[in-house]
Amino acid sequence: MSNLVRPNVAAAAGYIPGEQPTDTSTIKLNTNENPYPPSPKVLEAIRQVTPEQLRRYPNPNARPFREAAAQVHSLPADYLLTFNGGDELLACAIRACAGETDNVAYLDPSYSLYPVLTEMQGSRKVVILYEETANGWRLPQGLEKTDAAIFLIVNPNAPTGHLNSLADLDKIARTFRGVLLLDEAYVDFASHSALPLVAKYPNVLILRTMSKGYGLAGLRFGYAIGQPALLQQIEKVRDSYPCDAISIAAATAAILDQPYARSTWQKIIAERDRLSAELAKLGLTVPDSQSNFLLVRVPPVPASRITAQALYEGLKARGILVRWWDLPRIADKLRITVGTPEQNERLLHELRALLRG
Amino acid sequence: MSNLVRPNVAAAAGYIPGEQPTDTSTIKLNTNENPYPPSPKVLEAIRQVTPEQLRRYPNPNARPFREAAAQVHSLPADYLLTFNGGDELLACAIRACAGETDNVAYLDPSYSLYPVLTEMQGSRKVVILYEETANGWRLPQGLEKTDAAIFLIVNPNAPTGHLNSLADLDKIARTFRGVLLLDEAYVDFASHSALPLVAKYPNVLILRTMSKGYGLAGLRFGYAIGQPALLQQIEKVRDSYPCDAISIAAATAAILDQPYARSTWQKIIAERDRLSAELAKLGLTVPDSQSNFLLVRVPPVPASRITAQALYEGLKARGILVRWWDLPRIADKLRITVGTPEQNERLLHELRALLRG
Repeated sequence: MSNLVRPNVAAAAGYIPGEQPTDTSTIKLNTNENPYPPSPKVLEAIRQVTPEQLRRYPNPNARPFREAAAQVHSLPADYLLTFNGGDELLACAIRACAGETDNVAYLDPSYSLYPVLTEMQGSRKVVILYEETANGWRLPQGLEKTDAAIFLIVNPNAPTGHLNSLADLDKIARTFRGVLLLDEAYVDFASHSALPLVAKYPNVLILRTMSKGYGLAGLRFGYAIGQPALLQQIEKVRDSYPCDAISIAAATAAILDQPYARSTWQKIIAERDRLSAELAKLGLTVPDSQSNFLLVRVPPVPASRITAQALYEGLKARGILVRWWDLPRIADKLRITVGTPEQNERLLHELRALLRG
Repeated sequence: MSNLVRPNVAAAAGYIPGEQPTDTSTIKLNTNENPYPPSPKVLEAIRQVTPEQLRRYPNPNARPFREAAAQVHSLPADYLLTFNGGDELLACAIRACAGETDNVAYLDPSYSLYPVLTEMQGSRKVVILYEETANGWRLPQGLEKTDAAIFLIVNPNAPTGHLNSLADLDKIARTFRGVLLLDEAYVDFASHSALPLVAKYPNVLILRTMSKGYGLAGLRFGYAIGQPALLQQIEKVRDSYPCDAISIAAATAAILDQPYARSTWQKIIAERDRLSAELAKLGLTVPDSQSNFLLVRVPPVPASRITAQALYEGLKARGILVRWWDLPRIADKLRITVGTPEQNERLLHELRALLRG
């Protein structure tokens, strides 16, 4: 079959999403979903959908959502462009900017979809290593000189949870000659956003999603924030009707209910800090996270009795899913989504048992 | 801004979707929606969506839908792959098959998204002209020798409504060396499908959508039918979670209610044939259509009092939208979606007035 598709596609493994078990008894701390349900207003909006809304094509530009989000972000509506999930924005931004002879730059460790999207586009990968310190992770110097058509930075970073400073990002945006895509999928759990850079720089594109902060991973709804001239170009490579009528209604209701969303962020941040402290007490290394997950290092055997992989498997056998990758630099770590207090207690209980052996 | 994106993107105009007025008084016969609402079971399924389904990522492969559709088509589920609308499948198939030095072939007149997607991919366009006869449209000879990585054929064709024979398509599939994508967006209104070719040829990919036949244009749900080896390659360039939890539930309910869907197809086919006859009585040329629309030729002035463009504008002023393109070969024609009997009567009434002058 490989002779029917491009060589770069045939050679690629493709993206492997985190496990999505269909049973409801598993405690899912592996794909960074919000442990709390979406605002009740979302369900109300969904129940009000009419047959006529389903029968007709939706508004191509999700106008009700853009107007609501513009209000929340205090920006004009034409600074926003909607997508069928943040991943679609990533794919579109790469497609708009990078041809087969262009570079796509990203950091490592980072979102594992970036190399896959670059391979699919047939572009060249420029992989820059985060510096690992005793306390966590650090951006290397000189990134503004990166030679690439597009540079993707998750901030706060996944899977590390580390937040880069606005000053560091400003320095890159000012000099870097391509599009700087700041993937803020997890920004609702962080102390700051890079939103102020959008007005300053025509090459800055910010990604937001309703999946994490708004408890709507099942809805597939994300959006870009950027200057209109750049968004108009990205829109050309996007689907004509990326968001369906129901998801537009649901996402609009969700973003307008800021008090509800903020209350879940506060609960998650408080639990994150508590869980960090408890995990550290178990002898695990827990760098600061500004996200809704923790990247926890398991000290090497014999300091620890057990490897990160064995812990992942042990937790899975006990009905708790966390994320482990067999990849350089992170194979000794587990990424754990912050759950509800009850879920986190179950996790701590099982971890104690596994670490004690 | 054009220096931030690829030259092919900066130079392109992008796709212009048909008008989507927000008022409900306009009679929309311009974007080939089904005039009937979706099955009541779709609304039931939507009302049963739980907060937990929204909070979690959806099933990456829309498993409930694939199993239901597999049953309807009497195929194994791995012969199906779902997408956020048929347009996403078109984009993914081109992306998987055609690089910047490869050809993408399609016919003219045909779906106006094909050239746009080809431009966005940076691939080369191979445009083959349908032959226009006194009675309609005809495939040229020798298409099996087309040199392209992928060949896109809408069948029944849009905007002409003409249906190519299975023998003609079989002949192309047998010899053509790339992927033959048969876009069956309108097949529910036609006398035959090319489905039998899927088992015979590893390079045949069939597109289906829930937008037209199932009254779900607002839902964004389409799927591919093909041999698993080909679908596995296309899946690599597709979004990881293309279909949201609600649309999976809604599309599953829709495809399982075949009796309802078939009853709307029968009503539309009967109305199409009646409308064809009435339009012919007005002096318009109406070739056979196997779709839910008619491509009607307005005889040139002075045989007719009025041009196709003026008719389009006149109808619009009277609250009826049809589709007109300022493009070679079709600028003398109007594409009219078959509506309900009441909508078609209004159309005929206004056309009579405009043609009489």
